[in-house]
Amino acid sequence: MSSVAPPTLELREFNPTRPRVNPTLAELLQWVEQSQTPDRKTTSSNHNNVHHVLDLGFPSTSLSQSTYPFVLSFNNLTYSVKVRRKMTLLPSFRSAEAKLGGSPSSSSTKVLLNGVSGEAREGQIMAVLGASGSGKSTLIDALADRIAKYSLKGTVTLNDEILNSRMLKVISAYVMQDDLLFPMLTVEETLMFSAEFRLPRTLSKSKKKSRVQALIDQLGLRNAAKTVIGDEGHRGVSGGERRRVSIGIDIIHDPIVLFLDEPTSGLDSTSAFMVVKVLQRIAQSGSIVVMSVHQPSYRILGLLDRLVLLSHGQTVYSGSPANLPIFFGEFGHPIPETENRTEFALDLIRELEETPGGTKSLVEFNKSWQVTKRQKQKDANGCDNGACSMPKLSLKDAISASISRGKLVSGAPTDTNLASSVPTFANPMWIEMLVISKRSVTNSRRMPELFGIRLGAVLVTGIILATMFWHLDDSPMGVEERLGFFAFAMSTTFYTCAEAIPIFLQERYIFMRETAYNAYRRSSYVLAHSILSIPSLLILSLAFAATTFWAVGLAGGLHGFLFFFLTICSAFWAGSSFVTFLSGVVTHVMVGFTVVVAILAYFLLFSGFFISRDRIPVYWIWFHYISLVKYPYEAVLQNEFDDPMKCLVTGIQMFDNTPLGEVPVALKLKLLKNMSNILGLNITGSSCVTTGLDILKQQGITDISKWNCLWVTIAWGFFFRILFYFTLLFGSRNKRR
Amino acid sequence: MSSVAPPTLELREFNPTRPRVNPTLAELLQWVEQSQTPDRKTTSSNHNNVHHVLDLGFPSTSLSQSTYPFVLSFNNLTYSVKVRRKMTLLPSFRSAEAKLGGSPSSSSTKVLLNGVSGEAREGQIMAVLGASGSGKSTLIDALADRIAKYSLKGTVTLNDEILNSRMLKVISAYVMQDDLLFPMLTVEETLMFSAEFRLPRTLSKSKKKSRVQALIDQLGLRNAAKTVIGDEGHRGVSGGERRRVSIGIDIIHDPIVLFLDEPTSGLDSTSAFMVVKVLQRIAQSGSIVVMSVHQPSYRILGLLDRLVLLSHGQTVYSGSPANLPIFFGEFGHPIPETENRTEFALDLIRELEETPGGTKSLVEFNKSWQVTKRQKQKDANGCDNGACSMPKLSLKDAISASISRGKLVSGAPTDTNLASSVPTFANPMWIEMLVISKRSVTNSRRMPELFGIRLGAVLVTGIILATMFWHLDDSPMGVEERLGFFAFAMSTTFYTCAEAIPIFLQERYIFMRETAYNAYRRSSYVLAHSILSIPSLLILSLAFAATTFWAVGLAGGLHGFLFFFLTICSAFWAGSSFVTFLSGVVTHVMVGFTVVVAILAYFLLFSGFFISRDRIPVYWIWFHYISLVKYPYEAVLQNEFDDPMKCLVTGIQMFDNTPLGEVPVALKLKLLKNMSNILGLNITGSSCVTTGLDILKQQGITDISKWNCLWVTIAWGFFFRILFYFTLLFGSRNKRR
Repeated sequence: MSSVAPPTLELREFNPTRPRVNPTLAELLQWVEQSQTPDRKTTSSNHNNVHHVLDLGFPSTSLSQSTYPFVLSFNNLTYSVKVRRKMTLLPSFRSAEAKLGGSPSSSSTKVLLNGVSGEAREGQIMAVLGASGSGKSTLIDALADRIAKYSLKGTVTLNDEILNSRMLKVISAYVMQDDLLFPMLTVEETLMFSAEFRLPRTLSKSKKKSRVQALIDQLGLRNAAKTVIGDEGHRGVSGGERRRVSIGIDIIHDPIVLFLDEPTSGLDSTSAFMVVKVLQRIAQSGSIVVMSVHQPSYRILGLLDRLVLLSHGQTVYSGSPANLPIFFGEFGHPIPETENRTEFALDLIRELEETPGGTKSLVEFNKSWQVTKRQKQKDANGCDNGACSMPKLSLKDAISASISRGKLVSGAPTDTNLASSVPTFANPMWIEMLVISKRSVTNSRRMPELFGIRLGAVLVTGIILATMFWHLDDSPMGVEERLGFFAFAMSTTFYTCAEAIPIFLQERYIFMRETAYNAYRRSSYVLAHSILSIPSLLILSLAFAATTFWAVGLAGGLHGFLFFFLTICSAFWAGSSFVTFLSGVVTHVMVGFTVVVAILAYFLLFSGFFISRDRIPVYWIWFHYISLVKYPYEAVLQNEFDDPMKCLVTGIQMFDNTPLGEVPVALKLKLLKNMSNILGLNITGSSCVTTGLDILKQQGITDISKWNCLWVTIAWGFFFRILFYFTLLFGSRNKRR
Repeated sequence: MSSVAPPTLELREFNPTRPRVNPTLAELLQWVEQSQTPDRKTTSSNHNNVHHVLDLGFPSTSLSQSTYPFVLSFNNLTYSVKVRRKMTLLPSFRSAEAKLGGSPSSSSTKVLLNGVSGEAREGQIMAVLGASGSGKSTLIDALADRIAKYSLKGTVTLNDEILNSRMLKVISAYVMQDDLLFPMLTVEETLMFSAEFRLPRTLSKSKKKSRVQALIDQLGLRNAAKTVIGDEGHRGVSGGERRRVSIGIDIIHDPIVLFLDEPTSGLDSTSAFMVVKVLQRIAQSGSIVVMSVHQPSYRILGLLDRLVLLSHGQTVYSGSPANLPIFFGEFGHPIPETENRTEFALDLIRELEETPGGTKSLVEFNKSWQVTKRQKQKDANGCDNGACSMPKLSLKDAISASISRGKLVSGAPTDTNLASSVPTFANPMWIEMLVISKRSVTNSRRMPELFGIRLGAVLVTGIILATMFWHLDDSPMGVEERLGFFAFAMSTTFYTCAEAIPIFLQERYIFMRETAYNAYRRSSYVLAHSILSIPSLLILSLAFAATTFWAVGLAGGLHGFLFFFLTICSAFWAGSSFVTFLSGVVTHVMVGFTVVVAILAYFLLFSGFFISRDRIPVYWIWFHYISLVKYPYEAVLQNEFDDPMKCLVTGIQMFDNTPLGEVPVALKLKLLKNMSNILGLNITGSSCVTTGLDILKQQGITDISKWNCLWVTIAWGFFFRILFYFTLLFGSRNKRR
């Protein structure tokens, strides 16, 4: 017992079953901080196999974690999915199938988990082994609450209590196979941002920092702490270090249960060993570690406490690695001395799977063996692993005890009944947005070449357009060319946005992982993402507007330039929102790019440039109005031509582009005079016959004013951002059905 | 000795050193075939560890391959590359570097191989082990003649003779890590096509078939023979089977030396074992197998005959797996009984690498150990491995002996001096083209959806354009819209071709592997590829032309349609040639797509649609002429407007699109009459004032006739195909420098 433990804690430890409404972790942390004592570092020397996770400022108790262990039990887990057959177009095939399958539907059921039971204990690593397709990942998903409740049969309990999703999210972590990290953040920064997202606001910055430092030591990443993660183009940490950073991100809150899907895949033997060694350290700091693993090496096997071998969703072995030889020996297939045990076992299972009877015999043998084993242990000491020698703690008391030892740095409820009163997110929205923005800015500032390429592309296009449409005149031909320039310029703006698809797609995976455990609100992400895009859009727009406006000789002076610049901004904004939205819908870069290019081509076709609005067939007019290109195109066109005083065709130019174009000037003047007489007007060679307004009328640009065009373009941008939010909301479910 | 061996062979066997000009394999095969004997199946029962590769119809000799073994020796191999430093922009940095490095240049040298020696023998598997970056792949490349001669120091000999590249290509095979195969061919077809490419023409079809069948058995692929390879979208063979097919393709000619770069990577334990088991069978059929491997499992280790462990390009162990414990025991780091030997060794090496002294001590220990071992063996029996107990055969005699046993089905020279007289390719060009075409057609016919998607895209665009530009009238507005239609239609044609980039890129890797060993001429590939593209282009063109021509109301009747169709064909042809060429230059799908889209956009901008030719600034006129879109665009425009009798603007329409457009008809007629008087012409309301020719003149389309436009477009297609050929010629070098 600690000498200066807070009295309530002592009380609870002595009255483990006493029902009481516990405070939330935030409250707990507050009052333990107030009662800080000077002797808080008494146990710090023993930090390697007791947790040295975060010295939160309250005394460590001398309770060993094995005294009040957490036990994760799963019983008879069964999960099956409907497999859709390939479309059978001919009805005759379908009826044949129905005859064979006995069912008239074209889908069949595949059992992924079939009555799997077992338990994992605090301080231990439980490893799930099996060939691909055996159900390894499915079992991890089932335990980690990543399968919808209505699909999964059987129970998963922690200390005999069924966990609700919310509770599990707080006290557990799930580490995915792929290491999706921001490439230009250092290891330390990556973990620090994770701490800011997941640790409660009540925890001071310095406490978060010390948690990150402790974690860096625990993960064995001290030497790599200041190194950036890196990617193909940037040298960074090694594969094994990367994997450990990924794990670190997910255990920043020091969870009680840690699930990992093949944490060693893709690593070399030494790196893989280091990762599992770190996992052992985490387990010994008072956690349950459950992982799937493919072919553990001999050394890794030595770190695992409990194995579950699966074959076609059924347990074929469950127990310690040490018992494998006895088990297979009794089954009649002794493992040769020199062979790798798990390799032998997996190969044997594979061979059995190919026999007509399958692994049925082994499954049955395992069942009877489990019964015998349990009986033996009961006979020996009335208990297995010495855990049932004392009464098991209830879940809430176990969590409280764990917290009092410095465990669970996150905003965990200490009473499961009160889970709903705990805030789901660690931080308020504005802090989330701030942290997301800070991280994004830090990352992109270290990759200036990405923005450089976009700016370069815009500048090159701007310069080509500027030199191609150099100083357009105000003749009828010049007017045509201006129209062409605007159409091309506006489409380019949109196409430039398409280049961002790969970056958006990459970020989306990080987003999905982080929102899976409620690191922040989806809305914070969408908002921060939107706001962050604005500065770069402004720069790109300015670059494009400045290179083209005066070079082409557009109208309106400074005012005209400002409106032109604003319109390009709005087009960039709408375009990037559109592309962002699409990258939320499609998952493959190539598909995304093809779709964007095709849609933008149709937007251009229906924008009013190729066919003016009043000549578009009625059945296509809806497409004209949803064409994103229409609005900025009409806006810049009005900006160019809305001066009623500006003359685009004079009397003498009236005959350009007509069969009379090559008639001598004197004759043209004579014609004009004659026409004037007939019409009762006075048209001279220099009088204006076509103003900008006439051009707009010809082009059918009469429905929306130029400012409204600008607003509509901006509104489209917001519309697609909102759609993006909804794709994230509905598209990023992490559960299987 | 065989009872009915051809006399010359007998002679050579008894006079192994006698110099003589041997016949080429083709000749050899011919006369051995003539002297076919009935007892040729005497040794067929023993086909598992002697070769059962191809019963070519001549008698098997009773010579065991260990009597006249091939020995591949490498001595003191050293290879280093210049590593370019990151650009240092500031001169002060550079001078600081020069001070530190002692060299003023900004590049440093990295030693990849440092004095590596060893030998591999017939019937054995030699495995190269080491961490990534240790030089495994580099050593394999050095042995396989994939490093330029001037860069590689040291010697590689086969039976004491230095091999020239050409000879090595014929008697060896190199299997790459990635399994690039046509997804829709069956295993049997894949191997059969490889047989057709690599086995000499003199070998009859039935012999090739029996070689493929024998190989299928040797590879253990009998059950999968009729299964397609498969890809993401199509269920096919398993990963291990796929890998074995890859190996099979490269050993179709039954090479004497087989190099493999990590043949087990990415496979599960059982599949990996099966692959190495197959390699053992290949070695025992009279080949030398050299492979790199990452973490061999215990069972795989049992199949390896010789290990070479590398660390930073230096040998740290070389010998049999069985001697590993003795070696490391003597070095002072005994391997624990239960540990995996290679795992232990690799981990120890890694640990040493991190110490200040590195692996120097181990490298030195290995050197002295090798000397001692050799001495011991000499003392014991005057020889090692029993190979030097009889005189080594010269290379050419060894090859001849090997051929007489049915080995080396390929067009191998039996005299190294005559290598230059052997044809480099197995087949004449027309057969190559036929086989390439047959394979490509077989593969694509089983993936009709690929062409379906392209056809669908063309049809959808065609229908949208048809309905959008439905029945254009012959008014001035209608003329404008026709121009827009043609510009959009021609660009679409080109954009549609871009969708083929991923397929081209995928095929290119197969091409590179196949031409690396001279399976066929590059020109055959380019020609076959070009010819094969034509039928699909015709269908796509017809679909597009038929949906749009009458719907839009284009001019010229059947003749007009035919020319329109031909122009679209030519545009598809030029576009697909352009995209094919680009896919030969870029290696990444995303880059290729972005570049194509950008270039096509500029082609459109400079085509003459946005700015007519005579108004394009002089400094851009060159771009107008290289714009691929210009030529088909002008062709269809001339096809539309070249009828001098066709009236596009009548007298009364003259005032459309001018300020006088809304004047009453009566007044217009009066104006016309008046104008007629002044100009001395008779312009009535219905007289023609603008013909198609006038339009063409306005658009600046006066330089090239419509048929010439068509020819130029087609010529562009040929031009890019020729460029494609050159990119393949210069871009697909397989050697390191």
